[in-house]
Amino acid sequence: MIGVDWGTTSFRAFRMTADGAIRDRRTALRGILNVPDSRYADTLRDEIGPWLAAGENHVLLSGMIGSRQGWKEAPYLSCPIAVPDVAAALVEIEFDWGQVKLVPGLSATDAAGVAEVMRGEETQVFGVLKAMGDSGVACLPGTHSKWARVEEGHIVGFTTHMTGETFGALRGHTILGRMMREGPLDGAPFDAGIRRAADPGGLLHHIFGARAEVLAGKLAETDAAAYLSGILIGNEVRAAMDGRQGEVVHVIGALDLTALYARAISAFGGFAERHDGEAAARGLALIAGHASWN
Amino acid sequence: MIGVDWGTTSFRAFRMTADGAIRDRRTALRGILNVPDSRYADTLRDEIGPWLAAGENHVLLSGMIGSRQGWKEAPYLSCPIAVPDVAAALVEIEFDWGQVKLVPGLSATDAAGVAEVMRGEETQVFGVLKAMGDSGVACLPGTHSKWARVEEGHIVGFTTHMTGETFGALRGHTILGRMMREGPLDGAPFDAGIRRAADPGGLLHHIFGARAEVLAGKLAETDAAAYLSGILIGNEVRAAMDGRQGEVVHVIGALDLTALYARAISAFGGFAERHDGEAAARGLALIAGHASWN
Repeated sequence: MIGVDWGTTSFRAFRMTADGAIRDRRTALRGILNVPDSRYADTLRDEIGPWLAAGENHVLLSGMIGSRQGWKEAPYLSCPIAVPDVAAALVEIEFDWGQVKLVPGLSATDAAGVAEVMRGEETQVFGVLKAMGDSGVACLPGTHSKWARVEEGHIVGFTTHMTGETFGALRGHTILGRMMREGPLDGAPFDAGIRRAADPGGLLHHIFGARAEVLAGKLAETDAAAYLSGILIGNEVRAAMDGRQGEVVHVIGALDLTALYARAISAFGGFAERHDGEAAARGLALIAGHASWN
Repeated sequence: MIGVDWGTTSFRAFRMTADGAIRDRRTALRGILNVPDSRYADTLRDEIGPWLAAGENHVLLSGMIGSRQGWKEAPYLSCPIAVPDVAAALVEIEFDWGQVKLVPGLSATDAAGVAEVMRGEETQVFGVLKAMGDSGVACLPGTHSKWARVEEGHIVGFTTHMTGETFGALRGHTILGRMMREGPLDGAPFDAGIRRAADPGGLLHHIFGARAEVLAGKLAETDAAAYLSGILIGNEVRAAMDGRQGEVVHVIGALDLTALYARAISAFGGFAERHDGEAAARGLALIAGHASWN
């Protein structure tokens, strides 16, 4: 089968055996924002045409491709939910060269009754179910980080933290960015930012330190972005780890980002187990295996 | 005497009697960012020339006019500090039509040893000293909100919260703003945002609700900005009021903004006493009264 993690900015396709072993892969910067004139069918055929020609016929897509801005909107499914429930609710898409289905996103409400949504991350969480022993906490850092709770194979709830996007907005469009110069993001200033997140005063106070410490000559302009990043990731992880001290957190994503999160999780009393982006491939194979195909 | 609160975007001048009664006032959008070619002397003469001609000679300036980007840099003074100490450290400026002095900004370190700075707000805090009975807490909401602790006439410490600027960056440069439509900022959605700030999960989680609740059809696009504003102001006030339940907070600023803060302060267990922007005039008169003039 063919699994595609098709997000806002990137397109990642995997050709897999029935048991989820990856036979081939393709990556392109052809996320839904980069597909002109909604030519999704052409883009898909461009990318996976050779695999279809070689006899593949089952194609499963996950991610923002199933949003209102994507190829076809797949309505959110409610938590708690397990792989067979998702596999029974796939959305079919017309495509002349193979059978294509979409994985719907998930919705939930948090403890206070406020709405939550995800698209694509559910597939990655299912991809680490086995490693989690079917229960535990998964963290997917990024523009909009997700923390999901899993119980006996069900995603029972999750929370979103706008950490990556807030970092970009603060660096690009506030006085903080005007003092920053290019520098490494993963050094001692990042850890200082994490420690700062443990202090009282709140995030809106902590971030001002990225300016005041530079003015005071205590923080280099080349270190200010790393410090701000540590403050934001630290505030996210501090809140998400509240009441979870001693737990293992399964962190899924690119190596550089999961390494930063692992340091924050450790600082707030957790144990990080890191998984790379191929969690998406394993999740797609798992869902496809439960789906009915013609 | 003449007192001028000269900030980044606005210029507010007051002609006062020795005991601080306002005889006349001028306001212009001639903040330091709007003065071409650093023509501060010309701008000042333009604005207060008639008062100088009428015999005024002592001119005291506060605010960002004393920053590196302003007329002349006045080095920060360290907290704790009282009015006579500030009056003894005024910075003289050459000006052909009268005697001009600058009020320096203040620096401090917070409980964790992280640097803090302010310019202009110290003068407004001194302007409400009498109303505070020389001790208490002052809050100056804005782009960079300040919370100052005052003990027996001394500003002993303060914290900055980048609430207003973060609101602008999130509304203008993240996915949150793309869903927002013009609407009132002070209604029930603002209060819902304040209540949201009392929940666990942290600011980076709370703000995502301004998107997810719209997607879920539970929040109107015209109410999303007010909800986000309530979340941000609520998170600031929640952190700043930690351990201060039952205290009076002296909130200084424009009426619409201090009204919003008063609601948040009340929600987090405090009592707000509001003061308008003329606190700056009273502070300038008080400092001028302790200064030595030729």
